[in-house]
Amino acid sequence: MKNFSDYLYLSDIGHTNAKIWRDGNIETIPLQKFKPEQITQKIFYINVNHQIQKTLSQLPNWIDLKNYFSIKTNYPNLGIDRKVAIFEIENGIVVDLGTAITIDILKNGTHLGGYILLGKSGTLKTFQEKTPHLKFQQISENSEYPNLTENALYFGFFQPIINFIQSIQAKENLKIILTGGDAQEFFNLINFPATLNKNLIFENMQKIVKYKNLK
Amino acid sequence: MKNFSDYLYLSDIGHTNAKIWRDGNIETIPLQKFKPEQITQKIFYINVNHQIQKTLSQLPNWIDLKNYFSIKTNYPNLGIDRKVAIFEIENGIVVDLGTAITIDILKNGTHLGGYILLGKSGTLKTFQEKTPHLKFQQISENSEYPNLTENALYFGFFQPIINFIQSIQAKENLKIILTGGDAQEFFNLINFPATLNKNLIFENMQKIVKYKNLK
Repeated sequence: MKNFSDYLYLSDIGHTNAKIWRDGNIETIPLQKFKPEQITQKIFYINVNHQIQKTLSQLPNWIDLKNYFSIKTNYPNLGIDRKVAIFEIENGIVVDLGTAITIDILKNGTHLGGYILLGKSGTLKTFQEKTPHLKFQQISENSEYPNLTENALYFGFFQPIINFIQSIQAKENLKIILTGGDAQEFFNLINFPATLNKNLIFENMQKIVKYKNLK
Repeated sequence: MKNFSDYLYLSDIGHTNAKIWRDGNIETIPLQKFKPEQITQKIFYINVNHQIQKTLSQLPNWIDLKNYFSIKTNYPNLGIDRKVAIFEIENGIVVDLGTAITIDILKNGTHLGGYILLGKSGTLKTFQEKTPHLKFQQISENSEYPNLTENALYFGFFQPIINFIQSIQAKENLKIILTGGDAQEFFNLINFPATLNKNLIFENMQKIVKYKNLK
């Protein structure tokens, strides 16, 4: 028996990589190597990259899903990736940990606003350019606060974000949903409840293709 | 009448700039333009930059203060800039907002550990490389959470750090001392007590020169 997702091609294009979903398998292609014209099948995409949009608009098999996601929000320039991530979430804090980290707050079906932070890879890269001798990693130690530079950097990156999300959670009493490439690592570091869904974007893209009968 | 600081030359060398204190006036020189051999007067310095250290060690008028600052800590590789910033602070959270942001916790005269975060300039620069169309600035708006991308980026950078410092403060009940190039901006954003001292590093370097009779 065939599933709905069979022969379904999806793509999520950001500022660093293009991710291609082919029947449940995900390929991540750095933008420099991304050649959308090489994909000849019908493919549904979302894209936040202005430069690549020109190429995509000229390819008839590349179908932009951006106008299908309608979100109740006062945020005029909310990126399509964030719209897809929060799609159908009535109440929650959606945290997408990718090249950028976006934090979006939803209450009673309305998007109240959100934040954009620099993600782990960009932070790490910038530190390594300035201070290549410093390592960014988690090392077991007994002290309450980091006494090793590796941990000072590692928890200096993660701990403020953890505290921040927890403080919004405490204030709004909303569930936390984590997605994106660094979501698993973040999930391992927190000691409060959260839902981890790495494929949130592709799952919501699939939903729209199904609901709107686009396939 | 002459002050102690007259004819006193100090330098604080980081990974981006060298700051020179001449009798109370501060000059900031980008490292590419920094020529220490052009300063022929006696000058006391601290330096965290491994590459420049070789040159400085060969200049007899450049006097390294690094061995004069002794701090009670279990942090073996605590940078000299952080040691100078926390010098003589018995109880407090010292936040140095520069190229990097360092957060150090002191209790009963002991340094308990600390964190290193990427500072504003590096975060801004990394975002602008990826997404040059996005602006990073504070714009007045009425919503509780940012609804403008400018604010999503601006508060996405500052708010987690503000919350983090406040959470350490609440836990440890320590005063907060702010220093570094972005300290004034940070100070303007917080709604809890803190002491702003932009010249903490140079003031503490002066103290050591005086205490140890090095001038």
